[in-house]
Amino acid sequence: MSFDYTVNQECPETKARVGEFTTPHGRIKTPIFMPVGTKATVKTMSPEELKEVGSEIILSNTYHLYLRPGHELIEEAGGLHQFMNWDRPILTDSGGFQVYSLSDSNEITEEGVTFQSHLDGSKHFIDPEKAIGIQNSLGADIIMAFDECAPYPAEKEYVEKAVARTTRWLERSIEAHARDDQALFGIMQGGMHRDLREKSAEEITEFNLPGYAIGGLSVGESTEKMLEVLDYAPELLPEDKPRYLMGVGTPIDLFEGIMRGVDMFDCVFPTRVARNGAVFTSGGRITVRNATYKKDFTPLDHECDCYVCNNYSRAYIRHLIKRNEILGLRLTTYHNLHFMLDIIHNIREAIKEGCFLEYREQFYNQYGVEK
Amino acid sequence: MSFDYTVNQECPETKARVGEFTTPHGRIKTPIFMPVGTKATVKTMSPEELKEVGSEIILSNTYHLYLRPGHELIEEAGGLHQFMNWDRPILTDSGGFQVYSLSDSNEITEEGVTFQSHLDGSKHFIDPEKAIGIQNSLGADIIMAFDECAPYPAEKEYVEKAVARTTRWLERSIEAHARDDQALFGIMQGGMHRDLREKSAEEITEFNLPGYAIGGLSVGESTEKMLEVLDYAPELLPEDKPRYLMGVGTPIDLFEGIMRGVDMFDCVFPTRVARNGAVFTSGGRITVRNATYKKDFTPLDHECDCYVCNNYSRAYIRHLIKRNEILGLRLTTYHNLHFMLDIIHNIREAIKEGCFLEYREQFYNQYGVEK
Repeated sequence: MSFDYTVNQECPETKARVGEFTTPHGRIKTPIFMPVGTKATVKTMSPEELKEVGSEIILSNTYHLYLRPGHELIEEAGGLHQFMNWDRPILTDSGGFQVYSLSDSNEITEEGVTFQSHLDGSKHFIDPEKAIGIQNSLGADIIMAFDECAPYPAEKEYVEKAVARTTRWLERSIEAHARDDQALFGIMQGGMHRDLREKSAEEITEFNLPGYAIGGLSVGESTEKMLEVLDYAPELLPEDKPRYLMGVGTPIDLFEGIMRGVDMFDCVFPTRVARNGAVFTSGGRITVRNATYKKDFTPLDHECDCYVCNNYSRAYIRHLIKRNEILGLRLTTYHNLHFMLDIIHNIREAIKEGCFLEYREQFYNQYGVEK
Repeated sequence: MSFDYTVNQECPETKARVGEFTTPHGRIKTPIFMPVGTKATVKTMSPEELKEVGSEIILSNTYHLYLRPGHELIEEAGGLHQFMNWDRPILTDSGGFQVYSLSDSNEITEEGVTFQSHLDGSKHFIDPEKAIGIQNSLGADIIMAFDECAPYPAEKEYVEKAVARTTRWLERSIEAHARDDQALFGIMQGGMHRDLREKSAEEITEFNLPGYAIGGLSVGESTEKMLEVLDYAPELLPEDKPRYLMGVGTPIDLFEGIMRGVDMFDCVFPTRVARNGAVFTSGGRITVRNATYKKDFTPLDHECDCYVCNNYSRAYIRHLIKRNEILGLRLTTYHNLHFMLDIIHNIREAIKEGCFLEYREQFYNQYGVEK
């Protein structure tokens, strides 16, 4: 099938745009935020709850699924959608980032990467062909090329080599890709170097893929540094294809990325902080497990109309989290995802109505963050 | 208000009966199984899910709520129903059983019990007046008298004294009870001794309470021993009042208790084993975390029509539980509670249709248990 991307509206004052991407499991509206379901489950959430909070697409991690329960098992189950009872689009990453960041040791050669499992120390080898083969087995709607993500900081020479290798591995990824019902996205690398980002973009866009990602950001650099790259990087990618900023972000990151031309985001941040008892509110982030909220019988966010804010108090949620009760983690996760997807929805509406910057200003003023 | 209990139908072959008990938060049908929400939450479940699986009433523990977050806080929140977002009936125990079984040390006198919190070792004193006062603050529909539950095994002389004290403490509990929108139930003690059970029943039923419980069972004795007591104990209590067997049971316990005249049950067993990956099926209990189910793409129970069995495979649930994913615990808990409440529902229907023993035989044959 063809993976069509249509830009329906552009913001006159910024590079923000509203569009639609078609996949075998339905269309997704962009800009979009993808909740992360690392091990074939978005932690604490049921698929029905993910839909309630407005998730149109989720991300799952190839590295984790390859190790446990194994991609063959998931293929035998009928694919990832069937296995985890999720009938909307899924994106899988290539496993590359985890191989570099999570495994106990790894050795990178032109052929591929040898790494040790962080679970049991067992040795594994992954290369572009295998990364794509695993993703073909999992059966996500969007799959990612196997790239080399240079660490941060790194010598420019190293980053340059990683860019060149990423291009060669992209060619092998495309060659290995065996399913036309999955869209293969290429990944731009280049670290914090504009010339390398340009080189990478030039090389990968030659392949005319259905979408492109910006990799190698949110890897330890400052927000200023990241935004510096985002000031030019999205525009190096084709206008008529979705641009996916990997592993980002926070509520603020959404605004900052979208106004610079980013269409897709994923991040564990909203769900991870939720499990530590931190929740987003229209007035800023609060840590609901703090003693301040012991007798606070108001909702997490008085401006929010989600299931959690309609039915539970900060005092109750604090009690649950202090007592390690699972319902506490469910409620904070539910609320934070609803918050993220509500922002994304509002941003889309604001772009359509030509008032994106106004909405951003209004959100920032209330949320309490410097612009 | 008055707490009416109506027996609608009796089983001609056994002592089983079907009835209805009226509370301020609605009527409950008996026989009933009450899921346990120790700390103001039935572990892993939302209130909506509890309703989906058929919970008409839940139990919560006074001892735990008294220690954390404190009954004053819950009263300030508007009571336990409001605090935990549960609008159906609730029963709270008196805290007595936990004081004897959970606290680090305790000293029992005629006045009350001094005990150390199992959480932080802090010293506390509880007596009938305080146990009822706490329960008045929590605001459950059914509250329990403060009793002395003798350990098992114990000298008969000790049990006899506990029976007498339980009666004196019942009188003080009744005296202290200050809310007429809560039904106060008395508790029969007497260990495994028929004469003491008779004495206890005789003394507590004098007070003409809206319901009575059988305490001091499932405290470490064998199933045979428990059933021996249940052969006569329920009938020592008034026919026109609900009889509640505290802290019991398993699927089999439901059948065995009901045929002996028990109307109400509560137990952490179905939810606790669920969190260890054990689930009830029509063919018996299975441990879904076992390797046998690694590639088993069938539902937990092929005869079950619950949300979990309609949407997930044993292989997926095993994967979630092996990876410590919260959704795994949610799914096994949901299924086990559905299983228990489905049995209870079927038993009620079977009693009404006069085929209780047939249903029991059919269930046992399939579940694989000796009668």
